[in-house]
Amino acid sequence: MKFTCTKTNLQNAIFTVQKAITGKSSMPILNGILIETNKDKLILTGSDIDLSIETKVEADIFEEGSIVINARLFGEIIRKLPNDNINISTTDGISTEILCQKSKFNIINMNRNDFPELPKINENMIFSIPENILKNMIRETIFAAAQDETRPILTGVLFETKNKNFNLVALDGYRLALKSEKLENDNEINAVIPAKTLNEVSKILEDGENNVDITFTPNHILFNLGNTKIVSRLLEGEFIKYNSIIPEEFTLKVIAKREDLLNCIERASLMAKDSNTNLIKLNIEENNMIITSNSQLGMVKEEVNIILQGQELQIAFNSKYLIDVLKIMEEDEIILNFSSSVSPCVIKNKDENKNNCTYLVLPVRLLNN
Amino acid sequence: MKFTCTKTNLQNAIFTVQKAITGKSSMPILNGILIETNKDKLILTGSDIDLSIETKVEADIFEEGSIVINARLFGEIIRKLPNDNINISTTDGISTEILCQKSKFNIINMNRNDFPELPKINENMIFSIPENILKNMIRETIFAAAQDETRPILTGVLFETKNKNFNLVALDGYRLALKSEKLENDNEINAVIPAKTLNEVSKILEDGENNVDITFTPNHILFNLGNTKIVSRLLEGEFIKYNSIIPEEFTLKVIAKREDLLNCIERASLMAKDSNTNLIKLNIEENNMIITSNSQLGMVKEEVNIILQGQELQIAFNSKYLIDVLKIMEEDEIILNFSSSVSPCVIKNKDENKNNCTYLVLPVRLLNN
Repeated sequence: MKFTCTKTNLQNAIFTVQKAITGKSSMPILNGILIETNKDKLILTGSDIDLSIETKVEADIFEEGSIVINARLFGEIIRKLPNDNINISTTDGISTEILCQKSKFNIINMNRNDFPELPKINENMIFSIPENILKNMIRETIFAAAQDETRPILTGVLFETKNKNFNLVALDGYRLALKSEKLENDNEINAVIPAKTLNEVSKILEDGENNVDITFTPNHILFNLGNTKIVSRLLEGEFIKYNSIIPEEFTLKVIAKREDLLNCIERASLMAKDSNTNLIKLNIEENNMIITSNSQLGMVKEEVNIILQGQELQIAFNSKYLIDVLKIMEEDEIILNFSSSVSPCVIKNKDENKNNCTYLVLPVRLLNN
Repeated sequence: MKFTCTKTNLQNAIFTVQKAITGKSSMPILNGILIETNKDKLILTGSDIDLSIETKVEADIFEEGSIVINARLFGEIIRKLPNDNINISTTDGISTEILCQKSKFNIINMNRNDFPELPKINENMIFSIPENILKNMIRETIFAAAQDETRPILTGVLFETKNKNFNLVALDGYRLALKSEKLENDNEINAVIPAKTLNEVSKILEDGENNVDITFTPNHILFNLGNTKIVSRLLEGEFIKYNSIIPEEFTLKVIAKREDLLNCIERASLMAKDSNTNLIKLNIEENNMIITSNSQLGMVKEEVNIILQGQELQIAFNSKYLIDVLKIMEEDEIILNFSSSVSPCVIKNKDENKNNCTYLVLPVRLLNN
């Protein structure tokens, strides 16, 4: 194999495929990066089995071939080389020569045959969505996925199409996040993608409006971004019927300024930090929400202006779950819907047309309620 | 105690004294911040015994007093409060009330009497030096201080005055850093300050030309910055007679562009990383330095243009020590002085009038030398 490529192009490609190379695999070959030529194209691939990423790089190819080399070392060498053309060649089959200006590296190859075959996916594109929209949908839901593995299906994010909507849903038993976008597509999709791989996918997605084509198979999802293809395995099993969890009617409704409320809750949570529950109490009154917390460290009382429609209420929460939601939301004004001190709180934007997201947080039941 | 203070002033003062509050002390009281009034002044103090910092804050004092409260909690509360006046008062002697707009905190006090007395230092100022110059002198030497405690005196930085020069010196048995500044002062100083506390001191020093007044006692050094006083203990014992270590005559001299050399050595060290010694070899030729390294990972050859005065030489180093020096230096052109493959390399700026620093690095003796 022999090719020439600019430092910038090669560095960007390595940066992309390294998202799939976790360095935590028990298979040493998965610390490698597969570099291969395909006619006039150079293709780099990284994989940790759950997630595989391949990307095409502009290069002048003089001799075809295919090698695997240590991804971390290769990445560091390319990053530190001068901003110029880089010549890469393998002559002996044992090592790869990297030449750039007066720098010359020979690094030992890994065994090409050990590198796993990527899942073959028939790209009958199922739907297409702008990169920035998908990136944002992931950001707005992924934080609610479960961290612990007791119910593996909850460590993923549900992708579903329903009634001309494309929905992403994550929940962990204490809170839920649902984001919907309109989609002109009749395919029925219902698949759960591991949050861990989705997190890497979202780092590769750009803020622009280029489309990403998405294909599903029974076990995999493929994101095709043109020069880059990302394949993630799906989680097995059925996702929770989340619709039955989200109440549709409420007895009171609070309109609040998101940032004011977030600041008050963050301050109140400083006092709640020495307990596991991060317990804060909300006293919802006419025009006013009073937030209190106390612990061995002392106590705190915060007040924030609100508009209340309905009856007054006292309710308690794990402050972390409210803070997560209020930080992810971006609009100025939000609506919190309640029914009782033991029913879920549902949080939405005041203007649902602007951003159709639904967040649900379970309250903490207090002994004296 | 009762006072009002702006959020900004209070936050800056907490930030300063927290440098002395490591959170690692076995005495819980040292997690506290001492807040006391002294006539019309508010004074905050933090200490971990080795290092104590006190700073004055502009405040309106309505009632004198003195309390200790948890530094981390107090700092987080003040940081999260709105940018406005903050009212602080203790009424019951058990807790402290913090009021700002609609936020009200009551935090439990720590026992004031447990807080250690700071060393009393008679401030017969010994000399004065601009903050930015001292900050830079620390930066240029501290990295060479020993990390391990086998010879405790080497974990400090020597402050000495000699022949109208003020010198900072650090060494760890493998390399040495010496920085000199002219000083119009006849006091004889010879004291070793722990690198750990000096590191915190340098974070407080500003880049401006305000003077810092320095006083020494047999056991302490005091840095007086006007509103802030920093007291560090000194290390006991005598520093190594570093002068006898630095050779004064050399048989060859290399003039090199610092950044070019740094980049080549950094790249070469990528191959050296899997060994403990970070071994790189320098082949110093007429007009050219060839840097090589090899390991299980492969091998590398770098070339950099130099001007050589003297005979050709082959010498090996731990690349880390050369990289540390070349990164700390700031000038474009540097001089490396050598005598043989087993004698120290001494690195200086080409223009010594610009920045009078001396770095010494010991070579690695190769079996085939």
